Amino acid sequence: MAVATEIRRDPITGRTVVIDRAPFRRRDDFDLEPPRHPIAQKPRDGGPSDDVPSACPFCEGREADAGPEILAWREGGPPDVSGWSVRVVPNRHPILRIEGGMGIHADGPFETRDGLGAHEVIVETPLHDQPWHALDPERLWRVLWAWRTRLRDLQRDSRFASVVIFKNHGRAAGARLDHAHSQLVAYPVVPPVLMDKVQGGTRHFEKTTRCIFCDVIAAEEQDARRVICNDGAMLALAPFAARVPFETWLLPRDHAPRFEESSDRALEALALLVGKVMAGIDWALERPAYNVVLHSAPLTGEADRVFHWHLEILPRVTRYSGLEWGSGIHRNPVAPEEAARILRDRCI
Amino acid sequence: MAVATEIRRDPITGRTVVIDRAPFRRRDDFDLEPPRHPIAQKPRDGGPSDDVPSACPFCEGREADAGPEILAWREGGPPDVSGWSVRVVPNRHPILRIEGGMGIHADGPFETRDGLGAHEVIVETPLHDQPWHALDPERLWRVLWAWRTRLRDLQRDSRFASVVIFKNHGRAAGARLDHAHSQLVAYPVVPPVLMDKVQGGTRHFEKTTRCIFCDVIAAEEQDARRVICNDGAMLALAPFAARVPFETWLLPRDHAPRFEESSDRALEALALLVGKVMAGIDWALERPAYNVVLHSAPLTGEADRVFHWHLEILPRVTRYSGLEWGSGIHRNPVAPEEAARILRDRCI
Repeated sequence: MAVATEIRRDPITGRTVVIDRAPFRRRDDFDLEPPRHPIAQKPRDGGPSDDVPSACPFCEGREADAGPEILAWREGGPPDVSGWSVRVVPNRHPILRIEGGMGIHADGPFETRDGLGAHEVIVETPLHDQPWHALDPERLWRVLWAWRTRLRDLQRDSRFASVVIFKNHGRAAGARLDHAHSQLVAYPVVPPVLMDKVQGGTRHFEKTTRCIFCDVIAAEEQDARRVICNDGAMLALAPFAARVPFETWLLPRDHAPRFEESSDRALEALALLVGKVMAGIDWALERPAYNVVLHSAPLTGEADRVFHWHLEILPRVTRYSGLEWGSGIHRNPVAPEEAARILRDRCI
Repeated sequence: MAVATEIRRDPITGRTVVIDRAPFRRRDDFDLEPPRHPIAQKPRDGGPSDDVPSACPFCEGREADAGPEILAWREGGPPDVSGWSVRVVPNRHPILRIEGGMGIHADGPFETRDGLGAHEVIVETPLHDQPWHALDPERLWRVLWAWRTRLRDLQRDSRFASVVIFKNHGRAAGARLDHAHSQLVAYPVVPPVLMDKVQGGTRHFEKTTRCIFCDVIAAEEQDARRVICNDGAMLALAPFAARVPFETWLLPRDHAPRFEESSDRALEALALLVGKVMAGIDWALERPAYNVVLHSAPLTGEADRVFHWHLEILPRVTRYSGLEWGSGIHRNPVAPEEAARILRDRCI
């Protein structure tokens, strides 16, 4: 007997998803490829290992391969050599680059412009086999510190309208390298996915003079079924219209539009929460591939009243198929209430 | 030296993509998983084979497993037994179902409604190992006939606003079964991806009183660099803002909003063209996984002046990563001009 489904509307963007009304079943029910590249297949204990592929450009000692550092966390010493904890370098195959003009070239209905922007890589640890769920809070804090520092710096460049930070872990999530890293792209425009949220927030603000994210947080705290963890300052929740199984949002409880203005203390709370949540997801979905996205308000500041920074964790145990290409509507076989129920117990 | 990129705007929807300005390199450069499930791994000659997994519910002789037929192409004989060429059955795990109400349930900011709609599977051939590029035009014609027949039938149900037909081939494209099949979903609303096109077409019509698709076709014919094949009635082109390598659109040259109103002759032209294009893509990308999407105008007819039916072929040799989740902007490493140049020679 097929399970019934329901269509849910995301209160921020208005996007719809279809959720299966079924109890959570184990990862065996998903049709997965292995999260790791065969070259770096590791034993299941998850600890560091000696059989590091010699070609990994992000390992300590290979700084020249990764590129000149834009930023690093170091206990003294010169740049571009060993001795770092987190290191930021230019992406070697950037989607956007600093070179280029702002002009639009039109040829009939066809408009083109230069791929102007910035694309950086945050190498999150000098050791090869340290995924997020195995990093201690202190190391995670340094990753968040690097994100904040780069955002603050890029904000000063008036050519950029917004910055998105993301992370690919595992092949199914688009990672080409196993070594833990995240990426940062500075755009000359506000890209559509971020713009959808800004516009949704603006619509809500015009009606209520309140932040939609703050209102959603209040409603989620009252409902409680989708709250995973709430330490008072930072909140983890399974969003009402989750697109993928165990999609999780982490966000500050009080209104805060920009990640780059977070205090050290806020980053500490986030690092602690990220570690707990990732360990729970890693356990529940048995080492899934995943993406992480950080959305902070556009750099101009115009959306500061209507936007609220947040981190999205998107496990990749379902496929992007013709259904999504053709409709834009995701089907999620695990209700967020189920995911929250399971993660809540692991998140104490 | 990293290649430069350019940002392109799709003239219909306005969505942006980033295209690498680099010559096409072979499939070895993509980071792929095998297109086939291990259970049905076949020799590279692509012909039918005897080692069909016994569990395949779509093979001839297993009609009871696939479900009761809604439609079939048969040379006489009773339903639900062998002797068919194409067979349409209900999806056993439907995303939307006929049961349910139209009402919206609101709980604070959270809106839910029943998953009302229809979800059908078109089993495209009785033989297990016949992907599209191996089907002869006569068999492909029968698949298109089944699509048209089902669309015409569903159009009469006033609960449905639109129908999207799609196909998943290979694991990376979301296929769970290897046996060639497509799927049809009838929605109670116009889903966002189709709505983006309707709205883009409406904006253009309000400015020009012309169909945006007709205008794009005329501009592409004049430019010629992205035209793959043009038999006068049906056109194959690599879209200007292609999201994935070798993305291809097939569409009638003259204005035609609805696929379901296509003549037998138009379907013949489409079947011939699909066969040629799929064989070219299969050759160029060395048996890729792919999705296919058919977009026809919403069922109400209101968008008939501004919409033009078309088939999208989306090879899945790149990954949906944090970049796409975070921005909504696809990065395509193969310029459509490159893809068209390669496919054009195979499409005579």
